[in-house]
Parts: sequence; structure tokens; C-alpha cells
Amino acid sequence: MTTTRPFNFSAGPAILPEVVLEQARDELLNWHESGMCVAEMSHRGKEFMHIASQAESDLRELLGIPDNYKVLFLQGGASSQFALIPMNLLPPGGCADYINTGTWSQKAIGEARRIGAINIATTTEESRFTRAPAANELTLTPNAAYVHYTPNETIEGVEFPYVPATGNVPLIADMSSTLLSRPIDVKQFGFIYAGAQKNIGPAGLTIVIVRDDLIGKAPANTPAMFDYKVHADNGSMYNTPPTYAWYLAGLVFKWLKDQGGLTAMATINQRKAALLYDAIDRSDFYHSPVDPAARSWMNVPFTLTNPALDKPFLTQAKAAGLLALQGHRSVGGMRASIYNAMPEAGVNALVQFMAEFERTQG
Amino acid sequence: MTTTRPFNFSAGPAILPEVVLEQARDELLNWHESGMCVAEMSHRGKEFMHIASQAESDLRELLGIPDNYKVLFLQGGASSQFALIPMNLLPPGGCADYINTGTWSQKAIGEARRIGAINIATTTEESRFTRAPAANELTLTPNAAYVHYTPNETIEGVEFPYVPATGNVPLIADMSSTLLSRPIDVKQFGFIYAGAQKNIGPAGLTIVIVRDDLIGKAPANTPAMFDYKVHADNGSMYNTPPTYAWYLAGLVFKWLKDQGGLTAMATINQRKAALLYDAIDRSDFYHSPVDPAARSWMNVPFTLTNPALDKPFLTQAKAAGLLALQGHRSVGGMRASIYNAMPEAGVNALVQFMAEFERTQG
Repeated sequence: MTTTRPFNFSAGPAILPEVVLEQARDELLNWHESGMCVAEMSHRGKEFMHIASQAESDLRELLGIPDNYKVLFLQGGASSQFALIPMNLLPPGGCADYINTGTWSQKAIGEARRIGAINIATTTEESRFTRAPAANELTLTPNAAYVHYTPNETIEGVEFPYVPATGNVPLIADMSSTLLSRPIDVKQFGFIYAGAQKNIGPAGLTIVIVRDDLIGKAPANTPAMFDYKVHADNGSMYNTPPTYAWYLAGLVFKWLKDQGGLTAMATINQRKAALLYDAIDRSDFYHSPVDPAARSWMNVPFTLTNPALDKPFLTQAKAAGLLALQGHRSVGGMRASIYNAMPEAGVNALVQFMAEFERTQG
Repeated sequence: MTTTRPFNFSAGPAILPEVVLEQARDELLNWHESGMCVAEMSHRGKEFMHIASQAESDLRELLGIPDNYKVLFLQGGASSQFALIPMNLLPPGGCADYINTGTWSQKAIGEARRIGAINIATTTEESRFTRAPAANELTLTPNAAYVHYTPNETIEGVEFPYVPATGNVPLIADMSSTLLSRPIDVKQFGFIYAGAQKNIGPAGLTIVIVRDDLIGKAPANTPAMFDYKVHADNGSMYNTPPTYAWYLAGLVFKWLKDQGGLTAMATINQRKAALLYDAIDRSDFYHSPVDPAARSWMNVPFTLTNPALDKPFLTQAKAAGLLALQGHRSVGGMRASIYNAMPEAGVNALVQFMAEFERTQG
């Protein structure tokens, strides 16, 4: 059964796959003849334990996560990780490198500064965060505790076209808006984290993928809930995890496998992004502020040359079933987030609408 | 439409009202003609802002929360609050009083000890946590930063029959398993918190009700996500909140209003508890370890005089559609959690099953 759905370009919480929502609806009152909604199940009961471990194993398969990495299903969003990472991994007297490429890098930097000493390896602020730094622009600290970066900046729509080489220093990546958009080589990273509400599932779940040697480094007086070792040792069930969000994420992982996994998703995502950037570049009516070498596959900010037309654009887009296209208040203009769950038909509809709007208003 | 549902006595995550689940199912793909699942909505969009503020206003109405208290919708569970409370409210050189009445009190105490100096106002450990302390057993510190207690111990099934009088010292209550079970006088408390997964909604949401004068006391280097002032100033949207859990909690609040509010719920809850405790006390086959003056309305632990019958009891109960009756591993025996959403028919079915089991096995 297919309902008529608008295309929701929200940056997060964001569109979810329709078949996932249909399955969630169909099982809402009775998961697999258990007679229960998943949200009603004890997290220690055999039904939910099965759901939880299946989700983890599907995620491990999708990303090819090596055995010497733990996968944690936590709460608190990437914003909590901004503090927990230095609390756990930046020892007194140590230093961590941060690469500053936009709003979310800056937030991570701000929280780390409350905890310890950091070095800004480079910043692209002079470009108004419209480009990624070249590898030779990075000034890395020898023996840093770690290097932190944001592979995809959700607000500015800037994406690293490469993974920084940090040698023996662990690389930490906030992949909130890019995880699962394509294959990655997990071994290049010491620590990966992502809020779920973009490419994974509902808000309220945070995925952490952490290499074993980075677990167990928190100071002795660290509260249990803020210590990665506690969560790792307890299979993310030291306290009650966000069970329903974990279940929905598991449905999304199954859906991704059904689509052919991350290689297939990467092909589709690249095609969707190319379609939209081509439409923007083809026209003098629309403009992308981002360096073509660093344009995000997931978040596509663009402006109208005549900002007086912003409001009619948004109003008419909404009437055409194209939702949440307003750019972040700090940047202005438009932003189309085209995560995995955005069908190609949605990007086609947007591109057609943009052409028609230009024809009638341009 | 009514489905045949088992009765789920889990201590949490726990049973939810069937009509709430039906509404969630019916709106899952299309909330109020928005075309979206609530989990897909931007937390800053007008649809979710409406859902969020309606939930808060219904909760304020149910509990009679005065205007000088903020209501926060957070993540991380009560276990995170165990650390955040002393991080925010226990100044260096200060002292906080903790009343120790069971497993969850002890966990709160353990986390507070990592942060600062605490005094144990009293403990009922000598009773194996089967009673509440009398008011004159409490040794309170003059000018303590606060007094912390656990009005209802979920594991031991012990409930305070009174609210401790702490004068000008703020009283902090972990109400995870009792909030919304009856009316309370919020003015008696400085700070109330509760994990949602018992009487409120799904796991992954934590409710905090905090008096204005207790906000803004965190040290300057406190991470943003751990500072109540940040959440209060941002309407619980400093970062993306657990939107779907917030929405489901809102449906539960509406359901409670439809039942006649907390006075009506208290009558029903008292009746359910009395029915079950009477069945236990009437028989030598079953036993309640808890002092009758301190028996929980919500969590009813009981033992079989012959523990060799525990396993057949659980097996036959499950076959009769009575789920999750096993006691917590630290206590053993049985536990029936009979939160708001457990219908009286469920308690009736349990009591009948217990009588029949005694008749055939006793």
C-alpha cells in the first residue's frame, strides 16, 4: 500500500523510508505475534535482545565494522559526544587537534575547550565555510590525543572529499549527516559517531563506533553514564536504552540491505546530488555557494539570486509537496537535504519545480 | 478496534495504553494530514512545536505545576540525572543529603559521591530495603545543598507514605516509577525527575521538573548538554530532542486527562494494588516481603513460599498471557508492575491465575 506523501527535505529529523514506516505501523500493536509494541518490551527480554543484536549485526555488515570495534547505541545526540569525547579521550596535559570547517565543527570545538587543551589544525572560516581544507593545510600536533573533524557539515553543505591521514593518532569523525550514505573504511577511524535523525532513524539515538583501544581511558571519577567503557561492557544496556528508536534504526538497516547495501546507496546518492547541483549550476537564477570539490551529497544549500523571491519559492514549493527547504537561519537561502530515504522522484520533483519557478518568476 | 493483548507486567519499558498505541499506529504515516510521521518532522517546524508545547501544557495541567517551575524533556534516563544533579547543584565545599531506601537510591548515591560530599540521611538497608524510614529517622544536614530521595523503589517495591519535610533545603525526588500515578503537590519539591519508560511513554525520554531558583547553578566549565540552564533557556531544544518519544508521551498525557486526571488514576491504582496485595496476604502460598505501611502502588514484588514452583509459575503465567512477572535478579521471586496503563482486568486476571495456580500446585 502506498500513500501519497510529500517530499520532506528537512535536515533532521528527516524523511524515513516509506516501507519502514509501513512496517512500523503494521507491527505497532503486535511485534511478531508477541502481542506487544516494541516500546513496551523489557530491554532485557528475549524479544528486544533479538531486535537489538540483529540491528547491530546488520549495521556491522553494512559498514564492514571490524571485530576490534564496539558499536554503542546511546542517547544525547552528537552534542553530548562533543563533551564526552574529550572527557574520555583528552588526558590532563594532553592536546587534541580539531579541524574547523563549519557550524558543527565549531560546536565540537567549543565543548572540547571546556575540558582541555586543543589545537585548531586548520579553519576554513575565511571562506565562510564554503570549502574543505587541502590535506597540506592541516597542522597536526605530533602525539595528539586525537584528531577530530566533521566529514560533512550539515548546515554549510561542505563535505571532505578525502579522509585526513593522521598516522598513529586516532581520527574521530562526527558523521551525523553522512554515515550510511556510502561505504567507508572504518579502519581509517578510531571513533565514529552520529546522531540518528538524518540517515539512521528517529531522534534520540546516537550511534558510536569505537576502536577497542580507545575504551577505558576515562578518569576514575567519570560518571557511569559518561564513560564509554560502562556502555561497552554492558552492551549499551547499563541503563534502559532508547528501545523504540533502536528498533526503527534496525528497520532502516534492513531496508538499506534490501536496496543493495551502501555501494548501491552511494550510486543513487551521487546521482541525486549531481541532478540537483547540475540544475543549480545550469541557471543564473540559482546559486551554490560551495566549492564544487567539496559539495555535500546529503545537504545542498543554494540561494536565489534575487532573495526577494525566497518567500514565494518556499510557499509554492510547499504547495507542490516539497517541504522544509528553508536554509538554516545562520546561512539563509535554501537547503535541500537528500538523505538515503529521499527517493530520486523527490529530487526530480524539486528540480522540475525549480525550473518552473524560474520560468514563471525569473 | 480492540486487539487481543497479553497483560505485560514489565517494570519498564512497560505496558502503554492500548488506545494510545492505536492512535500512534493510525497517525504513523500521516500525522494530522501533514503527510509525515512525527519522527520525520523538524523539531523546529510548526507541527512538532505544537506537539511539544501541547504535551508540556497537558503535563502541567495534570500535575498542577506552578509557573515558577520549568518542565524539561531530556535524554539519558534517571541514570544520567544521578550525575547531572550533583554536577549542577552540589557546589564545591557543600554537602547534599541522600536517603538510602533501595537499589535506585544506591545508584544515585554512587554517582553523587564521584562529584562531591554527601551525607546519608538514613538507610533502611538493615531491613533489606523492605520498609520506608520514619520521618524521625532522617538526619538532615543544616544548609545542605539539597535532599535526594526515591519516593518509589522500582526493584524493592517500597514506597514512602509521606513526603519528607526539608524546610528551606530543596527536596529532589527520583519519581521514575511513580510520577503520574496520583496527584502530588509539586511545591513540596525543588526538583523532580523521571525516566519515561514506566508511567509516561517509551524509553529514551527523561522528564525534569525544576524550580527556577535551581537553574543556572552549574560551574562555568559545565558542558552545554549537562547544564539545566541551557536546556531551560532553549525549551529543551538546544539540540534535537527525542521527538517521537515526546509525541508518544503527549498521547499518554491526553489519555490520562481522558481518564479523569490523576485523582481518578489514584483511585484506580489504589484499587488495583489493594486487590493484588490482598490476594498475596490472604494466602500462605504467596508472600510480600514489604512492610504494609510502605507498599508500592506500582511495583509489587512477591515470593512463592516454595521457590521450586517459581519456574512453573512463570511458565504457566506466560501461557495465560501474563508476561514479565519475574522479579529483578537482585531480589528474586516475582514482581508485578501495575502502572497506569495496566488495566484492572489485568490485575484481575493475575489474581485469578494466582489462586488457580495455588489450587493446582499448592
